[in-house]
Amino acid sequence: MELAPVLARLAAGHDRILEELKEFAAIPSVSTNPAHAADVRAAAQWLAAKLSAAGPFTVRTMPTPGASVVYAEWLGAAGAAGAPTVLIYGHYDVQPEDPVEQWVSPPFTPTLRDGRLYARGVSDDKGPMLIPIEVAEAFFAVHGRLPLNVKFMLEGEEEIGSRHLEAFVARHRELLAADVVISADGGMWRIDEPSLTVANRGLAGLELTLRGPAKDLHSGRHGGSVANPLHAMARLIASLHQPDGRVAVAGFYDRVRSLSPAERAEIAALPFDEAAYLAQVGATAAVGEPGYATLERQWTRPTLEVNGLWGGYQGPGMKTVVPSEAHAKITCRLVPDQDPDEVVALVTGHLERHVPPGTTVTILPGDHGARPAQIARDHRVLKAAETALAEVYGVRPLIVRMGGTVPVAEIFHRLMGLDTVYFSFSTGDEDFHAPNEFFRLHRLHEGLAAWVHLLDILGRERS
Amino acid sequence: MELAPVLARLAAGHDRILEELKEFAAIPSVSTNPAHAADVRAAAQWLAAKLSAAGPFTVRTMPTPGASVVYAEWLGAAGAAGAPTVLIYGHYDVQPEDPVEQWVSPPFTPTLRDGRLYARGVSDDKGPMLIPIEVAEAFFAVHGRLPLNVKFMLEGEEEIGSRHLEAFVARHRELLAADVVISADGGMWRIDEPSLTVANRGLAGLELTLRGPAKDLHSGRHGGSVANPLHAMARLIASLHQPDGRVAVAGFYDRVRSLSPAERAEIAALPFDEAAYLAQVGATAAVGEPGYATLERQWTRPTLEVNGLWGGYQGPGMKTVVPSEAHAKITCRLVPDQDPDEVVALVTGHLERHVPPGTTVTILPGDHGARPAQIARDHRVLKAAETALAEVYGVRPLIVRMGGTVPVAEIFHRLMGLDTVYFSFSTGDEDFHAPNEFFRLHRLHEGLAAWVHLLDILGRERS
Repeated sequence: MELAPVLARLAAGHDRILEELKEFAAIPSVSTNPAHAADVRAAAQWLAAKLSAAGPFTVRTMPTPGASVVYAEWLGAAGAAGAPTVLIYGHYDVQPEDPVEQWVSPPFTPTLRDGRLYARGVSDDKGPMLIPIEVAEAFFAVHGRLPLNVKFMLEGEEEIGSRHLEAFVARHRELLAADVVISADGGMWRIDEPSLTVANRGLAGLELTLRGPAKDLHSGRHGGSVANPLHAMARLIASLHQPDGRVAVAGFYDRVRSLSPAERAEIAALPFDEAAYLAQVGATAAVGEPGYATLERQWTRPTLEVNGLWGGYQGPGMKTVVPSEAHAKITCRLVPDQDPDEVVALVTGHLERHVPPGTTVTILPGDHGARPAQIARDHRVLKAAETALAEVYGVRPLIVRMGGTVPVAEIFHRLMGLDTVYFSFSTGDEDFHAPNEFFRLHRLHEGLAAWVHLLDILGRERS
Repeated sequence: MELAPVLARLAAGHDRILEELKEFAAIPSVSTNPAHAADVRAAAQWLAAKLSAAGPFTVRTMPTPGASVVYAEWLGAAGAAGAPTVLIYGHYDVQPEDPVEQWVSPPFTPTLRDGRLYARGVSDDKGPMLIPIEVAEAFFAVHGRLPLNVKFMLEGEEEIGSRHLEAFVARHRELLAADVVISADGGMWRIDEPSLTVANRGLAGLELTLRGPAKDLHSGRHGGSVANPLHAMARLIASLHQPDGRVAVAGFYDRVRSLSPAERAEIAALPFDEAAYLAQVGATAAVGEPGYATLERQWTRPTLEVNGLWGGYQGPGMKTVVPSEAHAKITCRLVPDQDPDEVVALVTGHLERHVPPGTTVTILPGDHGARPAQIARDHRVLKAAETALAEVYGVRPLIVRMGGTVPVAEIFHRLMGLDTVYFSFSTGDEDFHAPNEFFRLHRLHEGLAAWVHLLDILGRERS
């Protein structure tokens, strides 16, 4: 399939595509705010209409207990022997615009300044998601068909934890069947270099309460003779790490896949200025598990972090109290092949074995467990993505990982056995969840070309 | 001086005395509430009038930047060679009445039920304070004089930390000169047995903040590579105690006076049911410094207690944050001969030496430092108080201590070198700071007789 006319059509269509993105981004589809429910519906309708206009897609707006999923498919390549099918993921809902007074231009009046389009949701994820739709439209216009079978699954609840996605995927396994998921959500690591993300960490959490005396006691009368849950909590939390920074929970590292020398070399070769990083986050030192570099710690090693800790008196001045309770919230970031339920069980066991005398512990598992995900470095779709980016940028992309957690990738893997390749053209610094979110226009153009190459390469492969 | 007619006059005057106490307790002299400022003044006026009517006292209502001190003196015994002078302390302000809906009878409508007078402040400290005034009145009426020189210093800010008392005492050292302070504020340890308090613990406090990264960070992106101040705080707080419960701050115990075998025997001989105590406070075990019994820990050993601890996310659900800061509030209960400033310096030094890597500590000293106080077991005024109580109760009083802190005793000791003997007839269970505060009528009667004996014994002594 000839690509030059497809690329030429997209290049000629830049102004129109930009206008369409402005129109899409002007819809305030804030999923967390019930007052915007009609706007969330309007964004779904806009997308469904756009997909219908883009070519001979079968388009469905599929209800969930929350926002609808916009689904579209074109399976016209199925006739060709072994034609692959890709499932493209994105989301049309956006973060709230607060604090609105800090926006230079109104959040839902998309505005061009200095080669950037400013609007809420334009980088996360409306711009990156519109790209493959425009690319499909160009293929249909030029060739009447796509290089391979394509399904779009575009949800409206990503910013509120994709809360109905798992049930939706479980229910529609057959409809969604594909060879791979390509996520238009994600983001490049750096401004200057293209990158591909090959792994992200998982998540497991729990909350604990330590109880001492039945009620708050006067520390003059009772201090020194009954257990103080704050002392007990400090000791218990401190017991979770070795003094050197390693997690001290027995079995915590048992399933952790070691880095191969090649993987370590790949990470070590990345341009990373640790001093600049520490200055950026305002930290005085790199602190963590010994034996690993900062990027290795962030991307490839599991962590146990206390996210909240509290008990007793927090007001001004002093209050001489031995409090009755102390509380902590803990999350662990997981790496292959750790399992969230198993990690919660290991940490729970540790806490129960280390409860200090005179206190009792109650542990509540958290609700956001997610498995870590990693795609094989020689995965053919990853290789195709590398080639597509090299075509556009003239250099091989950096191979990076994510410290954070992307539940959708984990859901597709667990329920359908599908790997997810991130192919997004937003950049990590584009203020996704802050005022003055923007999307770089050059990324829009690069993304259009890269998606053309990616679909072409995948369409030429036959399993 | 014959005591029988004095005791007879007081016995005959019970109804009148009860009416006077009702009148006094009906004045809502809540010092913490500016809306009650006029009532606080009215209580001072009531007292000054009562003292003027009681006998040939020189009475002064002496202003402070807050509530006035009511001062009265009769120095007519000064002529006799070496006649001693006692300074009687009490306070006429009361705690707030909240929650008012839990009172069975209105808090400022003193009401008799089952041999108890119910009203806010009736036990703390209006009833116990009225007793020596009534006793003085009876001596004057029967003998025209008191057995010794008497000064009353009655303040109106005890419930708000006696905040102007130190400056007042410093300024009026000469006026207040005496051989000993007898406090009508305090309280008996038990309902059934008389007791005398020979020591109370001091207090020293500080607040600390640990800072890690300059702002809250996402635990997915940054977790495991920068210091988490909550982990650091847990480790730092845990470092303050040995695993066995001893305070681990170097030098903390250096000045602590050891208990003599006699002192330990005296405490061991007290009737104390540890299981009943633990059940009362809802604790599953006695926990504290090894080698000491529960009462020894509460009364004679110093403590370091965390009263508040907080940082990060405390709301519902999870928030994957590495917080920027963690906070803790700490107080120490001190025993002779520890010094509050020195203890704050020792704890500060420990904290600074143990700050975990990647965090910085800021320490703010607390504002309520108070030295511990202890009266010699063979102090002649203590012996006199024992004899007076034995006269009334027919048994020797229990010798007890207080785990808490009484700033007034410390101020008199530091500024004037005076010991304080507690001679109060309230009981620890009379709901001082809670709804339905009450004062037992039999304690009123016992108190009147005991003060007669105490003043008589002291008056017969000549130094």
